[in-house]
Amino acid sequence: MAEVATARRSRITPEREAELYAAVLELLREVGYDALTMDAVAARTKSSKATLYRQWGGKAELVVKALKSQKHVVSLSDGDVDTGSLRGDFHAIVRRGDDCDLEQNSALMRGLAMAMHGNPDLLRAFREMIIEPELQEMRLVLRRAVDRGEIRPDNPAMDYVLHMMIGGFAARTMIDEQPPTQAFLTSYIDAVILPALGA
Amino acid sequence: MAEVATARRSRITPEREAELYAAVLELLREVGYDALTMDAVAARTKSSKATLYRQWGGKAELVVKALKSQKHVVSLSDGDVDTGSLRGDFHAIVRRGDDCDLEQNSALMRGLAMAMHGNPDLLRAFREMIIEPELQEMRLVLRRAVDRGEIRPDNPAMDYVLHMMIGGFAARTMIDEQPPTQAFLTSYIDAVILPALGA
Repeated sequence: MAEVATARRSRITPEREAELYAAVLELLREVGYDALTMDAVAARTKSSKATLYRQWGGKAELVVKALKSQKHVVSLSDGDVDTGSLRGDFHAIVRRGDDCDLEQNSALMRGLAMAMHGNPDLLRAFREMIIEPELQEMRLVLRRAVDRGEIRPDNPAMDYVLHMMIGGFAARTMIDEQPPTQAFLTSYIDAVILPALGA
Repeated sequence: MAEVATARRSRITPEREAELYAAVLELLREVGYDALTMDAVAARTKSSKATLYRQWGGKAELVVKALKSQKHVVSLSDGDVDTGSLRGDFHAIVRRGDDCDLEQNSALMRGLAMAMHGNPDLLRAFREMIIEPELQEMRLVLRRAVDRGEIRPDNPAMDYVLHMMIGGFAARTMIDEQPPTQAFLTSYIDAVILPALGA
């Protein structure tokens, strides 16, 4: 049975998967998480609901996987960055997304952050598939900075780098009525995150 | 005509106003901003829609006023704080709300932040009535710290105190799966905000 499932699973090509994720994100932008149904995804992508459930387990997992398939989801993560300095690493992380990605992601993330409140399965999937990998990359970048002697190993701000980053990202529209651009995030890192880390 | 409007306006007592705001927040928690109607507010509070529109102008203004009527909306603002040190001022600001307020506000604010995306009038009312006063209080607290010589007048982190604060407040649930308590916000201020300010 397991073999059959694996065989079926492997029938979805990377191209088909990308197509499917694009359709999910499109639907998400159109109707939001709560109104998005597996029926609608099946209809839009001409797949069967059984396939969707077998492949992804449920709506929360499918949506978060689709989000994760985009580069630069929360302007962080995805691949290793090692420029030789903490400032260089942070700037490289921000430069991975272009401004258009950042703005689109900002809107999607706001919508999902809201939906997470009433959907514990979405919060769980989001934490597992997006927050945890971000935190892990952040820890790696910080550990290297500690090893280089750039920051003290007991600096308490190390636990809050992602909080600060999300603050800059999420509050930009509300406070300054401007989208979070690369230029803004870069100057925010220099003004706030590096000084808080004592770097 | 203006006099008549003023006379009418003054008929609403502070008690009645408080009752009305409580009903609006209750409805907001039940159905969310988009599904909240002036009809529902009128029915729940036994007032006429004409009175609501005359008094508040519209749904966005009414909702933001109701939110503002609560103490400690985003854990900041409302009255002057002057303890003699920047750290003391920040801690006093956080202590104005109890943990229960903080958690309730956190949920309400997440909902509204989402709704702001599709409702420019809500974003405008929120900025005017909540963000702007917060920024003004923040600027006052920071100016005093500069005058006391605690922070340098050209520190670029001064423009981002509210971004950092909102980051701690909003990302706490998502990253740490815990509500933003007074204890957390106090240690976040010490670990992140004061060091970023060089204080």
